[in-house]
Amino acid sequence: MKIGILTSGGDCPGLNAVIRGAVLNGVISHEAEFVGFRNGWRGVVEGEFSPLHRHDVRGLSKQGGTILGSSRTNPFEGEGGGPENIQRMLDENGIDAIIAIGGEGTLTAARRLTDAGLKIVGVPKTIDNDLAATDYSFGFDTAVEIATEAIDRLRTTAESHGRCMVVEVMGRHVGWIALHSGMAGGAHAILIPEQPTNIEQICEWVESVRDRGRAPLVVVAEGFHLDDMEEAHSHKGLDAFNRPRLGGIAERLAPMIEARTGIESRDTVLGHIQRGGAPSAYDRVLATRLGMAAIDAVYDGAWGSMVTLRGTDIRTVSIAEAVGRLNTVPQSRYDEAKILFG
Amino acid sequence: MKIGILTSGGDCPGLNAVIRGAVLNGVISHEAEFVGFRNGWRGVVEGEFSPLHRHDVRGLSKQGGTILGSSRTNPFEGEGGGPENIQRMLDENGIDAIIAIGGEGTLTAARRLTDAGLKIVGVPKTIDNDLAATDYSFGFDTAVEIATEAIDRLRTTAESHGRCMVVEVMGRHVGWIALHSGMAGGAHAILIPEQPTNIEQICEWVESVRDRGRAPLVVVAEGFHLDDMEEAHSHKGLDAFNRPRLGGIAERLAPMIEARTGIESRDTVLGHIQRGGAPSAYDRVLATRLGMAAIDAVYDGAWGSMVTLRGTDIRTVSIAEAVGRLNTVPQSRYDEAKILFG
Amino acid sequence: MKIGILTSGGDCPGLNAVIRGAVLNGVISHEAEFVGFRNGWRGVVEGEFSPLHRHDVRGLSKQGGTILGSSRTNPFEGEGGGPENIQRMLDENGIDAIIAIGGEGTLTAARRLTDAGLKIVGVPKTIDNDLAATDYSFGFDTAVEIATEAIDRLRTTAESHGRCMVVEVMGRHVGWIALHSGMAGGAHAILIPEQPTNIEQICEWVESVRDRGRAPLVVVAEGFHLDDMEEAHSHKGLDAFNRPRLGGIAERLAPMIEARTGIESRDTVLGHIQRGGAPSAYDRVLATRLGMAAIDAVYDGAWGSMVTLRGTDIRTVSIAEAVGRLNTVPQSRYDEAKILFG
Amino acid sequence: MKIGILTSGGDCPGLNAVIRGAVLNGVISHEAEFVGFRNGWRGVVEGEFSPLHRHDVRGLSKQGGTILGSSRTNPFEGEGGGPENIQRMLDENGIDAIIAIGGEGTLTAARRLTDAGLKIVGVPKTIDNDLAATDYSFGFDTAVEIATEAIDRLRTTAESHGRCMVVEVMGRHVGWIALHSGMAGGAHAILIPEQPTNIEQICEWVESVRDRGRAPLVVVAEGFHLDDMEEAHSHKGLDAFNRPRLGGIAERLAPMIEARTGIESRDTVLGHIQRGGAPSAYDRVLATRLGMAAIDAVYDGAWGSMVTLRGTDIRTVSIAEAVGRLNTVPQSRYDEAKILFG
Repeated sequence: MKIGILTSGGDCPGLNAVIRGAVLNGVISHEAEFVGFRNGWRGVVEGEFSPLHRHDVRGLSKQGGTILGSSRTNPFEGEGGGPENIQRMLDENGIDAIIAIGGEGTLTAARRLTDAGLKIVGVPKTIDNDLAATDYSFGFDTAVEIATEAIDRLRTTAESHGRCMVVEVMGRHVGWIALHSGMAGGAHAILIPEQPTNIEQICEWVESVRDRGRAPLVVVAEGFHLDDMEEAHSHKGLDAFNRPRLGGIAERLAPMIEARTGIESRDTVLGHIQRGGAPSAYDRVLATRLGMAAIDAVYDGAWGSMVTLRGTDIRTVSIAEAVGRLNTVPQSRYDEAKILFG
Repeated sequence: MKIGILTSGGDCPGLNAVIRGAVLNGVISHEAEFVGFRNGWRGVVEGEFSPLHRHDVRGLSKQGGTILGSSRTNPFEGEGGGPENIQRMLDENGIDAIIAIGGEGTLTAARRLTDAGLKIVGVPKTIDNDLAATDYSFGFDTAVEIATEAIDRLRTTAESHGRCMVVEVMGRHVGWIALHSGMAGGAHAILIPEQPTNIEQICEWVESVRDRGRAPLVVVAEGFHLDDMEEAHSHKGLDAFNRPRLGGIAERLAPMIEARTGIESRDTVLGHIQRGGAPSAYDRVLATRLGMAAIDAVYDGAWGSMVTLRGTDIRTVSIAEAVGRLNTVPQSRYDEAKILFG
Repeated sequence: MKIGILTSGGDCPGLNAVIRGAVLNGVISHEAEFVGFRNGWRGVVEGEFSPLHRHDVRGLSKQGGTILGSSRTNPFEGEGGGPENIQRMLDENGIDAIIAIGGEGTLTAARRLTDAGLKIVGVPKTIDNDLAATDYSFGFDTAVEIATEAIDRLRTTAESHGRCMVVEVMGRHVGWIALHSGMAGGAHAILIPEQPTNIEQICEWVESVRDRGRAPLVVVAEGFHLDDMEEAHSHKGLDAFNRPRLGGIAERLAPMIEARTGIESRDTVLGHIQRGGAPSAYDRVLATRLGMAAIDAVYDGAWGSMVTLRGTDIRTVSIAEAVGRLNTVPQSRYDEAKILFG
Repeated sequence: MKIGILTSGGDCPGLNAVIRGAVLNGVISHEAEFVGFRNGWRGVVEGEFSPLHRHDVRGLSKQGGTILGSSRTNPFEGEGGGPENIQRMLDENGIDAIIAIGGEGTLTAARRLTDAGLKIVGVPKTIDNDLAATDYSFGFDTAVEIATEAIDRLRTTAESHGRCMVVEVMGRHVGWIALHSGMAGGAHAILIPEQPTNIEQICEWVESVRDRGRAPLVVVAEGFHLDDMEEAHSHKGLDAFNRPRLGGIAERLAPMIEARTGIESRDTVLGHIQRGGAPSAYDRVLATRLGMAAIDAVYDGAWGSMVTLRGTDIRTVSIAEAVGRLNTVPQSRYDEAKILFG
């Protein structure tokens, strides 16, 4: 069997470990052959790929990024796109199946292509941990670890200067990275997209920390929104062109907190350092197992399925059932964390 | 309510985070009071403890070791031991309940004391991850991370000198640390107590790695045993006094591998560095949640129960049912890892 | 002798190690007594301090921030300020001498106070490494290490997406952190305050990297300025109120690079994570030795002097001679680094 | 010019950064060509080498070990050894000069070959930092950092159990790694080859720590020897064959300390993890600069010289003058550290 692998969307620690796990299991257990598509679906629609031998994946489990490159190309668009063109390209090159490693978009595309007869198995990739089908996704643990280290560092500065630090972490639609890194780092407020909060409440938490003689530390997910209208009002009357650039949520929150509480406040945006570099051991093991399991799914002919983690087991689920349900932070987990605030 | 906390047995990253989670949840949610027993059960039988205030647990989630100290004292032995003496001490000091953080021994003792009427809730502590009642125990992730970093470092030396490196990690009865760190670090053989192997098989793996032009890396759990008689035979005829000191398993394996394969071999024993120091973010979150859940169990009057992790949930189970079943590495997980050997 | 210690200005990894080194050497070698002034010179002019015993500095060498707190208070201002008031406060409290740990401002103030008869010894603190009197200052090595780790992480994202990453590190007046972290991380351009460059040159470096098939990585010190007028021109005609918020240098450079080269570009500002948290071993040793040497200078009566590093030796130099000379990156070091660009 | 590079002796973090610095400076500044000899001098005497292009050194600054391999082969021995044979091999392959990266042995051999007319420049490699000609050698900072992290971890275990921990670090003839990691980690005794100490003195330090309520932490260099005769006596009368295997110094010290003080004592031998893996930023900068400077020395025709660090400058010194003088820990540095003991 000749299997093509692609990685799509934003990079995530563990992508290379998935590739390695798949190639090693394929080569050793099944004498499979592999090709790697360049830059996600773009390599598929443009027929750009190269052989992926056992020695090409040597030492990959600890390497960040993806050796295959990535893009946000949609496989249904462009000259070579769509199921027929793709199937023709696969046939011409003797490629029997595709393992597609990517997020919601990639998995949905994979399902649609499978519905049209293509042989695809998915591996979910979401650093935000926002897919309900899997307990945890690879990359998430590494991001939490990096964010926690940063919070540990910021805390000493906060305490030395009696400042409030506002740290922005990843999490567009869900607050898992904020929840876990905030809990691990002992944050005094954790602000997540699932739980809009008004600025009064935030300042109350911050002031209660100050009143206990400590320096407040606020962790905020990039997708958090205030549930009030203050911000909107503050720029009323400025036309779009002259309206000040908004910046991220931390950049806006810090001066609001300082203005209301009188506590000197600073923001830090962790940004891309959360998604690059060597994966944690946890993510290496998870990613390796998912890559290996994807091969088993291929040899089971489980087209249209994807591999996931449940408890300590790797399982195969139908993509159709798996995507579309956002893995939000449940109320009980937020309530649990909130006990430690303020 | 006045709650006493103790930590017992070998230290483990996350002990302090459990203590902090329990105290904060107790103080904030229930206005509980706390005392910390000194050095495990010894503090209980000798009535040695001190108040544990909110400010005493400040910053503890990232701190290794245990601020309460530990020991291997058995609460049924000694002058102040046994259920009646302990109950009397508790009554005299107005202590209503005990949270006991410890391994198999501590939990078994806690169950027996509970059977005799004491009010105790357990928190499982096992860096080896050998308790079947919980998916993972705190400290394990940190140990795997440290072992993986060490393996990463040893690999470059191995490759530079064309040597076989044999790394000994913790794991007296089960091979989880070896399995996960070996998988994360790309080991070429993982030797665990659950899977006795003969030296011929090990050397076969090692030689096959060498034949592919690479430097073999063997990860061995301290509790692994060869399944043959070579070792026993080699010292036959020496009396006990003159028999050479055996050393650990890695120290014995390295020369055996070198003698049989001709590949220069070195052993490294990671030892205590695996169990000290700051916990990983994963372990801090898990330990904090377990500590918080222990308080809920106390206020539920769930005496004789312990808190555990199942999937992403913290649950309460009866100690009686939980202890006694070893969490061994299942055959399927070993087979999965073995595909990547040699 | 009773010695007062203060830390002033922005925090820096190693401050606590200096305090510990001073207290331990003072207590053990000379049976000195210590007090710690709260929040820098503010604690001096307001007479706010507390005793600093041997057990107060336990475990401090690895702890980031400063247990004494810091501020930017000027000791010549305010009610209790100026040499006479300060001397009176010292006399009233039986404090014989001051060890002042701080940057250029603190050292200059210390010298002026010494000229007026006060007994002060200085310890230079500058995370930017911008004091000519010392080969390296504590905190610098840690900042370089953190920046290098971040660059390592960003590189894998850059390579996976074929992007240009622009990383902003500390360095207001000098480019040492950018130079060392850029060299350690294999940056393709290092932009420092000492070497203004025009945007054409930067884009030339970036394109040459892209042309060799790699993802360009640019490290820029916060104090770097373009040597051309483009930026000024681009906002001509907007009045001050409506002028868009400028943001940091990386935030401005990334879109300029993208616009001119067509290479997708992203900025990351490391900010405060560079100055908080545990110091590197290098900084712990340097800071400990400086703290110990400050005590020797006190017992030598070397008022108005400060302790510095030359080669592998700790020396004492006159503050008057030491301050005022900026430790800029010499042309030869920049030329050396530049060979590796592009 | 065509330049051959070799790495010889034990591996050391930074070897690859030296190779990269040399190749990049050579290719970019001088359009030099490079070959890499396999496995140190063995590749020279056996004429085994391969081309080393610019892309071969990509990303090498952060990679531990040596891509060229290493060995302990002596270039004066064997069929292809000695100056004439080597010169003939170089001539036949058009190799103009050699950059030899290695320790005392390699540098001495390089000098002897240079005396016989060969064109060689040396780069000193010693993780122990035992060469007097350079302030610091690359690899040393990384080793100290790793040892310090280990000491930080062991301390929490020590404190939790009231144990004495004895940590063995590298340092065969000199105690620099022990001195710096011990100082950074707050050790209560630092035992180095330059300062033989008797067991009574060590136990006195250990007991004084215990008496202050703390857990003693002893750092010992592998080359440390007790200055008394106890050990020798204890095995008197056993013939060589039956004498128990001695083990390392930590393994022998821990039980001696336990027997005399009654404090439970444990040893940990850090071993090979100190010399593998990614170099610290400090070592990457130093190694890169040394590699670049070696090329300058080659183009200056400075045969028989080696590159070193003095203060913040890279200098070129004659190997003849440089080798043979051990860089021992001076009495003043030991006395400084000793103040913090006990």
